[in-house]
Amino acid sequence: MREINVGLLGCGTVGTGVARLLLNNRDLIAARLGAALNLKRVADIDITRDRGVRFPEGVLVRDARRLVAEPDIDIVVEMIGGEGIAKELILSAIAGGRHVVTANKALLAAHGNELFRAAASKGVDLYFEASVGGCMPIIKTLRESLVGNRISAMTGILNGTCNYILSKITDEGSTFEDALANAQQEGYAEADPTLDVEGHDTAHKIAILSALAFGMEINLKDIYIEGISRITPLDIEFAGQFGYRIKLLAISKAHAAAVETRVHPTMIPFDNILSNVNGTLNAVTVTGDAAGDILLYGRGAGMMPTASAVVSDLVDLARNLIAGGGPGRLPGLAYQMQNIRRIPVLSIDEISTHYYFRFLALDRPGVLSTVSGILGRHGISIRSVQQKGRKTNGAVPVVMLSHRAREADVRQALAEIGALDVVAARPALIRIEDDKLVD
Amino acid sequence: MREINVGLLGCGTVGTGVARLLLNNRDLIAARLGAALNLKRVADIDITRDRGVRFPEGVLVRDARRLVAEPDIDIVVEMIGGEGIAKELILSAIAGGRHVVTANKALLAAHGNELFRAAASKGVDLYFEASVGGCMPIIKTLRESLVGNRISAMTGILNGTCNYILSKITDEGSTFEDALANAQQEGYAEADPTLDVEGHDTAHKIAILSALAFGMEINLKDIYIEGISRITPLDIEFAGQFGYRIKLLAISKAHAAAVETRVHPTMIPFDNILSNVNGTLNAVTVTGDAAGDILLYGRGAGMMPTASAVVSDLVDLARNLIAGGGPGRLPGLAYQMQNIRRIPVLSIDEISTHYYFRFLALDRPGVLSTVSGILGRHGISIRSVQQKGRKTNGAVPVVMLSHRAREADVRQALAEIGALDVVAARPALIRIEDDKLVD
Repeated sequence: MREINVGLLGCGTVGTGVARLLLNNRDLIAARLGAALNLKRVADIDITRDRGVRFPEGVLVRDARRLVAEPDIDIVVEMIGGEGIAKELILSAIAGGRHVVTANKALLAAHGNELFRAAASKGVDLYFEASVGGCMPIIKTLRESLVGNRISAMTGILNGTCNYILSKITDEGSTFEDALANAQQEGYAEADPTLDVEGHDTAHKIAILSALAFGMEINLKDIYIEGISRITPLDIEFAGQFGYRIKLLAISKAHAAAVETRVHPTMIPFDNILSNVNGTLNAVTVTGDAAGDILLYGRGAGMMPTASAVVSDLVDLARNLIAGGGPGRLPGLAYQMQNIRRIPVLSIDEISTHYYFRFLALDRPGVLSTVSGILGRHGISIRSVQQKGRKTNGAVPVVMLSHRAREADVRQALAEIGALDVVAARPALIRIEDDKLVD
Repeated sequence: MREINVGLLGCGTVGTGVARLLLNNRDLIAARLGAALNLKRVADIDITRDRGVRFPEGVLVRDARRLVAEPDIDIVVEMIGGEGIAKELILSAIAGGRHVVTANKALLAAHGNELFRAAASKGVDLYFEASVGGCMPIIKTLRESLVGNRISAMTGILNGTCNYILSKITDEGSTFEDALANAQQEGYAEADPTLDVEGHDTAHKIAILSALAFGMEINLKDIYIEGISRITPLDIEFAGQFGYRIKLLAISKAHAAAVETRVHPTMIPFDNILSNVNGTLNAVTVTGDAAGDILLYGRGAGMMPTASAVVSDLVDLARNLIAGGGPGRLPGLAYQMQNIRRIPVLSIDEISTHYYFRFLALDRPGVLSTVSGILGRHGISIRSVQQKGRKTNGAVPVVMLSHRAREADVRQALAEIGALDVVAARPALIRIEDDKLVD
């Protein structure tokens, strides 16, 4: 039986998962592929730690650069992470004519355009199913299954850490801090949780998906990013009273000559299926002109779900090698290189959506009319106002839901409202996605 | 730009959708594929009807056999349906060395083993993404994304007609007959609805998915099939009181040396995401050893969702042709032909699950103890008994939920209970899938 030789760079959690899956399900994979995926070499700085995997003698080595240069490695799997050595090794593998598989969303979001250009000009493939959504086949769905569709929108819960924390606050009324501490204890959040909870990881992923869906260069830097660290149990409770749940969503929509791509906590109605995606699970909906809405749902991270996606890339590449065709069967960013455009990402000021505002107002006559007056002058019309909860220090929480409004107007109005003497503390703003609302 | 020539057999609803998508999104598809998918010929018995598609002169013809034999057609798309002429034309296309795309689940479920053998021995591909789940990429997910996973179970809502009818009964308390009439009026059910409502269409689909998941020959004839025509508003209401919704599920599970594959109305808990899949939508969950559970959700039928899946197959095949590799890059039934086994499907008598029983009992002392005695003698233990609703003609509905029991035992017990003088009418039985129940 033919063997396809795989070299694995980095044997941490996910790398170990890949090794384990290749070894444990070797016969099963061969029965499907018609060839063996042979884990030829694994490079990691630590070659003594017990990973619960029995590598044959000589497989585990320390020198990643040498692995990349080995002539009989067909596919290099980069599981190191980060933008430093991982980028150098991927570029070096590409230069050496190796196909590459990676799960490194941070790297692809920041340097993907350069990497895919390098791969295309060298005639090798760079596959990355595991970079977004773990085992959910969202990359394959966009590049292959929806290839006949003009895609208009995507909405995703793409970070399990954030979803776990928000589920915890929703179900147990914990504070963000307590829910984060719990997530860290359970192993669902890193010691430094910034990348996850401030929305950057989600932004990396939606930057990649947007490129695939809309035929654009990857553009991370223009995406609006807001994390979940300011979400309070109070807002989650009020949201529930209005029929909404709060999720950290990545939203990306096609406009005529731009895209709208943003990451922020968002209220979605209970009957939106995404509102029932809880715990560390991920889900993403994609809207195509032929398919309508489709949703994928599953484990977006973790050792074995991520390994599952890596192995699917390995088998795809192995099939290309075995079929004996030319390289580049599938273009890296879903469109042929010459058709990829630089499409502007709208500034958050330019978007328009529905809003939830909460502020603490002194319980005095005329306050509501002053606030409404400011909103009205900025063209923001209100569909619901409620005074919620109990008075503390003479102030009461007031909650308003707006009709569709322009974000720039909303921000100016909130700045004016926040500056009022009768309003204590900065108003809270949470965006609402609700397809049923008509403006 | 290179052109790949497509010949379309059958231009009814879905065929017209394929034509429309290929024509409307021609440039978009070319920008992704790097070649044009050229709708070279369309064969239909009716070449005069206005389909809202402008075919160039000479494209629309009447002679399907001649189309299949045209030397410059690269891929034949079969959209005729049924097992007669469709099978003949597919075999003839294969014999002529053409790749084939079909959405014909009835044909694949009945004759798939023969068709895939013919394609493999001729070195051509037979693709069928649109045969199950419409635009949901379930075939691609099983054949490609989960290729590294040992798959243990699948559960699906795979028929939009049944799901629409059950949703209607659930939401509006309609009878089956009224809900069916409504579905027919809305165009969601055929004039002869048997294929859908009696579960056969669902069985065709799970027969195909089971082959892909478990490496077995397609086996339709041994699948237990029960439709939704005996489901009453009463059972749906009682189900709701126990926290369950009733869905027509296709269930397929791997056992050590057999598979358990069955289609029947099933109670699932409210917090199972499948219980929230309503209307004509479809969804399917797959459990893999590495991925865990993943779910796909979307439009399982209809003109454009089905066309979306057909075009994804066309592009996949076109990529194979353009890459210039050998044929059979991807084995038709997910496993290499020599690894496909004949795996037995368990008889329904051999399965064990949880049950809901409802019977009308005369309101007399000792009835419940007689019934419980019969169940007990057959080893069926009861976790809940409730007398529900009002007395009619001296009889009251009694509802029981069982712990896990063997179906053969359940059937014998119900036959004995149904024969009792104190029990009016045949007891109703609905199976329950509830992962949270521990036995």
